[in-house]
Amino acid sequence: MNKPLEFWFEFASTYSYPAAMRVEEACIGAKVDLIWRPFLLGPVFAQQGMTDSPFNIFPVKGAYMWRDLERVCAAQGLNLRKPSSFPRGSLLAARICAAFDQSDWVGSFIRAVYDANFAMDLDIGEAKVLEDLLDALGQDPETVITEAQSPENKKKLKTMTEEAIERGVFGAPIMIIGEEVFWGNDRLEAAISWAVGGRE
Amino acid sequence: MNKPLEFWFEFASTYSYPAAMRVEEACIGAKVDLIWRPFLLGPVFAQQGMTDSPFNIFPVKGAYMWRDLERVCAAQGLNLRKPSSFPRGSLLAARICAAFDQSDWVGSFIRAVYDANFAMDLDIGEAKVLEDLLDALGQDPETVITEAQSPENKKKLKTMTEEAIERGVFGAPIMIIGEEVFWGNDRLEAAISWAVGGRE
Repeated sequence: MNKPLEFWFEFASTYSYPAAMRVEEACIGAKVDLIWRPFLLGPVFAQQGMTDSPFNIFPVKGAYMWRDLERVCAAQGLNLRKPSSFPRGSLLAARICAAFDQSDWVGSFIRAVYDANFAMDLDIGEAKVLEDLLDALGQDPETVITEAQSPENKKKLKTMTEEAIERGVFGAPIMIIGEEVFWGNDRLEAAISWAVGGRE
Repeated sequence: MNKPLEFWFEFASTYSYPAAMRVEEACIGAKVDLIWRPFLLGPVFAQQGMTDSPFNIFPVKGAYMWRDLERVCAAQGLNLRKPSSFPRGSLLAARICAAFDQSDWVGSFIRAVYDANFAMDLDIGEAKVLEDLLDALGQDPETVITEAQSPENKKKLKTMTEEAIERGVFGAPIMIIGEEVFWGNDRLEAAISWAVGGRE
């Protein structure tokens, strides 16, 4: 019996982009249940004493990351246009995912948001951008966003971010199988092997 | 015509261990010239405002790294015993590599030092430990260490560390082909492909 794979992700996170674009297909191929786990990196980095992306705090690391991401995306056949502002505000998109994490369109929405952020350089922090994506997926933007902004759902995302920190999430993307933690797009295959192997 | 691969490494660096153990064999297999590039991470981290290993500064990241390194080493068939002190002092070992980077035994010495540090939990900061490794390789410890501690060679290693920083080295291991930079044990295959592809 394969174990489910929790995919912890943040829409502003660069390496979450190539991982998010392929995780659902990879899980289906391996017959592993995928659990989408949106959270916010801001509070996670704040716990580590950082008030910005480490890629902005350490410019040499940031320059490397953008070049490396170019190579990774090229190898995966993904378009990449460096966002003109980084990191983009991800709060509303994350709230939508938290509210609709059980819906049959959440995977498509997640990929559309990453595409908007990293391939089209759209400001995913703007409600209008997300409304257009929801509309293209056949969802009613107003209904979805009202639900996403409800006090209950705001609390749900906050609780998920607290759970992330408690369970050892320190960056994104992070895959968790049971208590086994895998960090980064590079570890997706290892995480799936772990889920399939069913190792404790 | 394949391009040479520069392997920038630090003996205290955890992910340099699995990379250093396989880089020479991988380069020989791909007919890529390997250039060993010892340097010190201390001054590199100091430039980023850190006075210790980031794995010590951020305990949650450190805990993850040790677990991940266990998995990586197991997959590579390498023994791993967490060093009882981390990071170990690497200055003398790095000086030996800098002095003898053209010798036919430098690769074997490098692997022996990593094995001592990460598989045997020996203090590679102690001259006696390195003397035993040199002796086992058929080298005269006193001659080698005298040469390594010469003012010219001390300056050589210092200059190499400065060159590392200038060329965008911010961690270890880092592979450089021409001006293309690859960070981490995970990127060794990509670096070799780049060297073979001869891409500018």
